[in-house]
Amino acid sequence: MAIALAHALHRNRSLVYARYLQLATVRADGKPANRTVVFRGFLDPTNQLQFITDTRSQKLEQISLHPWGEACWYFPKTREQFRLLGKLKLVSADHPDPTLLKARQTIWHDLSDAARSQFVWADPGAPKIDAATFAVSPPDRLTPVPNFCLLLLDPDQVDHLELRGEPQNRFSYLRKDNLETDGTEWSVQLINP
Amino acid sequence: MAIALAHALHRNRSLVYARYLQLATVRADGKPANRTVVFRGFLDPTNQLQFITDTRSQKLEQISLHPWGEACWYFPKTREQFRLLGKLKLVSADHPDPTLLKARQTIWHDLSDAARSQFVWADPGAPKIDAATFAVSPPDRLTPVPNFCLLLLDPDQVDHLELRGEPQNRFSYLRKDNLETDGTEWSVQLINP
Repeated sequence: MAIALAHALHRNRSLVYARYLQLATVRADGKPANRTVVFRGFLDPTNQLQFITDTRSQKLEQISLHPWGEACWYFPKTREQFRLLGKLKLVSADHPDPTLLKARQTIWHDLSDAARSQFVWADPGAPKIDAATFAVSPPDRLTPVPNFCLLLLDPDQVDHLELRGEPQNRFSYLRKDNLETDGTEWSVQLINP
Repeated sequence: MAIALAHALHRNRSLVYARYLQLATVRADGKPANRTVVFRGFLDPTNQLQFITDTRSQKLEQISLHPWGEACWYFPKTREQFRLLGKLKLVSADHPDPTLLKARQTIWHDLSDAARSQFVWADPGAPKIDAATFAVSPPDRLTPVPNFCLLLLDPDQVDHLELRGEPQNRFSYLRKDNLETDGTEWSVQLINP
């Protein structure tokens, strides 16, 4: 599964926005929510997709209540779509797992100054007062600010559709955790588009 | 609201896939679902977005149970995002409203042969047996097949984010139905990105 995705990423690498995808979650009132997020690589050595978010954002509350997401990722150049359904995990400053805290710090470190600055802007979604609260100096790149959050999507069901081909090809991947080897395997089935 | 969207569509018209967006719904088990759909224009003279779907698809059951969706629409060229939250309405062959049935027929008529053929393909999502069930002659363009469905999204909350600009601009639109004029008005507020 991750190989097919890595392949699509590689073949679409000339488009900056091939790293943009849409993440759906469920709101507290049961309605769906959907927004564009930037793919920040896989959490090595797993199949988990990394994103970043702000603890002040609406999706934080949504994910805390319903920790499930479906990412929809369309690759314009190769005309293929991946739908990745799985559990969402938030890694904030007080997370108990040191490996995940390290991943959080690495991603913070590798962000651009512009991306880091957004985390010290005024509250996202609140009425805008003036521009002054946005003219900030970028925060220190070694220490993530407390509201910076790593967000992980651990897919266990993936639908891969290739629009090229007559008819189109569509593959359904299902995760099978192998308890003996402590590893993850995937079953794959060709399904009707 | 529709003006801002029409403007973005116009400015991104050189990209075929600027008409592709991601529609999130909620599954019967409460998990989110998300897939790419093609924008088929507004339902004249309303603000409702038109899509098409197959009564055999999973989203049909989802929408029947939870008739709410959020569309996330990213425009790569102008670097802006619209999030449109609203009620979803299915218009199938037995819908009582003749105006909506007419809209369903017009969209069917204007599809390509390739798009119409998908509605007589084998059951979407079922295991693929062979290619024979896909080699069909395109159905008649005057009469929609029974499983062809018009899908309407009637937004009542829109979030418009422009990534260009320092800082970015973000607008929140809320629908206000005007009962006196039987029309729809929108309030707009500048919010923090």
